[in-house]
Amino acid sequence: MIAAEEVVLVRDIDGPPCAADFKLRAVEAPSHGEGEILVRTIYLSLDPYVGSILRGRHFNESRPRAGDVVPGRAVAEVLQSRAPGFAPGDLVRVETGWRSLAVAPASGAAKISRDEGPLSAQLGAAGMPGLTAYAGMKHLAKVGGGEHVLVSAAAGGVGGAAGQIARILGAEKVVGLAGSAEKCARAVETFGFDDCINYRAEGWRDDLKRAFPRGIDVYFDNVGGQALDAALAQLAHYGRVVLCGLASQYQTAERPAGPNPGMFIAKRAQVFGLVVYDFEHEQEAYSRMASAWIREGRLAVLEDRAEGLVQAPSLFEKLMRGENVGKTIVVVGPEKN
Amino acid sequence: MIAAEEVVLVRDIDGPPCAADFKLRAVEAPSHGEGEILVRTIYLSLDPYVGSILRGRHFNESRPRAGDVVPGRAVAEVLQSRAPGFAPGDLVRVETGWRSLAVAPASGAAKISRDEGPLSAQLGAAGMPGLTAYAGMKHLAKVGGGEHVLVSAAAGGVGGAAGQIARILGAEKVVGLAGSAEKCARAVETFGFDDCINYRAEGWRDDLKRAFPRGIDVYFDNVGGQALDAALAQLAHYGRVVLCGLASQYQTAERPAGPNPGMFIAKRAQVFGLVVYDFEHEQEAYSRMASAWIREGRLAVLEDRAEGLVQAPSLFEKLMRGENVGKTIVVVGPEKN
Repeated sequence: MIAAEEVVLVRDIDGPPCAADFKLRAVEAPSHGEGEILVRTIYLSLDPYVGSILRGRHFNESRPRAGDVVPGRAVAEVLQSRAPGFAPGDLVRVETGWRSLAVAPASGAAKISRDEGPLSAQLGAAGMPGLTAYAGMKHLAKVGGGEHVLVSAAAGGVGGAAGQIARILGAEKVVGLAGSAEKCARAVETFGFDDCINYRAEGWRDDLKRAFPRGIDVYFDNVGGQALDAALAQLAHYGRVVLCGLASQYQTAERPAGPNPGMFIAKRAQVFGLVVYDFEHEQEAYSRMASAWIREGRLAVLEDRAEGLVQAPSLFEKLMRGENVGKTIVVVGPEKN
Repeated sequence: MIAAEEVVLVRDIDGPPCAADFKLRAVEAPSHGEGEILVRTIYLSLDPYVGSILRGRHFNESRPRAGDVVPGRAVAEVLQSRAPGFAPGDLVRVETGWRSLAVAPASGAAKISRDEGPLSAQLGAAGMPGLTAYAGMKHLAKVGGGEHVLVSAAAGGVGGAAGQIARILGAEKVVGLAGSAEKCARAVETFGFDDCINYRAEGWRDDLKRAFPRGIDVYFDNVGGQALDAALAQLAHYGRVVLCGLASQYQTAERPAGPNPGMFIAKRAQVFGLVVYDFEHEQEAYSRMASAWIREGRLAVLEDRAEGLVQAPSLFEKLMRGENVGKTIVVVGPEKN
């Protein structure tokens, strides 16, 4: 019997989740059936959408309750397989939950090549956060040459990728919004934003105006709230807005109202709600392309890491407070045994 | 010296305009200079956007003050011309303001053929309100065959045209929202909506759900507020929303917040702010096409009329209260002298 670990909820989550809402426990290794694979987790992804799932706010996904394992995606190694196409030693991107060993249906696992750049990036810039950024910039906003682009949560996993992908697609100016001077520095230094404005600093709305004298062509919003209001006020006529996330609501019970529709009318805005699930069929092609961008130095990988599944609760609390810089990853096991 | 009449503001308009805010006065006929035409007003258009101009809320247009003539468009006959291409007897669509006689630059006047159907329709279904509906349905929402469409303010000049144009473009189901049983009856009987829901009646949100079992493909919004919230809740995934007007704010001092952005995200909504000025270059072609639709009986003309410029203030108050049914027109003079 192999020993395994998993993280479960101590209680139902109604408000902002904190580390004490979770506990690590030892369990027996699960057994797998026909069509399933047994995997060991290498890198576990912590993502804001999981906070929404825990509070029952994420589309129609069922809400985990006290005692349930926390959901989450990972890069993992196949230990045993009862599914055609998967063999021990294969690397996969798969839904493991917060577990060191997990059983998953093979249909939900995607194989990863070992030579595609840093493995953990398959959860970040080359994974779902990267695909989110790409789908928004390429398919919805259709960012083109010479455009001026604003991205909020610019130091985060999605926002950092969004800024860099806008540049790859030909944007002339890429400016970030972030919630601290440290995050802004990272967005500029690591992700190559032309500028980054700290929306907790005094006079930031004036800074935003100065950064976009001819208006914002594309705004990629991960935040909502004041950032969205300010971006709309500075939007160019016919500017496009991708609504991707609502970090300003992660810590709140209520879901505050949005901008007056007159803001959208006056600017002739085109607004697109983005849900990355709609683009999952592109994940494999995107990952290959993004891995090449990473190797070429056009797409930077910046991670906020902790070692050991026991660290997941406190690292997740940090993420939900918006204190992370870069993509949040828990290193659960070594890349090679 | 010819006598003329005009309507001026008695006071600056800060709140909902009422009839007592205006007064009719007799004036001398204006004289015109090089490049200008002198016209007599036949039909004066009363429009919600004028209410926004009076309160200084309409884009960058300057706000009229006490003593100023109220702005407005009209169908008029040229009496004298000092501009090439215009001769006495020509009919034009032109900005006259609320005047019986007006001078206008020829560059702002568009000639109308006498044989294009009812002349007053050049201010309604074949004029700017119709072009607004057409631009939203055709160019922004791109309504196509088999789609299910919702239109608010369905008994109004823009809404009524929007429903009928959606049908012309191939919509399978066209449902209206309006603020009274009488308006709903008109939307169904005159404009051919399949159904119309009175959003002041109890249980109207349930009626809306029942009307769109597979969701709303396109929502054309002239109202904002509760109507927009309810439509978003029932929007199909990837549904399109045209934001055209905010009748729910005509009587209010503040500009209330809009829907939580999460509503747009969850539905993957595509939202378009519509300003008809962007489509003015299509007005002439649209008017010809719409005139043909009117002759063929595919586009109905429904008007709320009053006779005489002296009636404009009370008819305008009625419009701003949302008590009009159809396009609001003041008959200022006869079609032929």
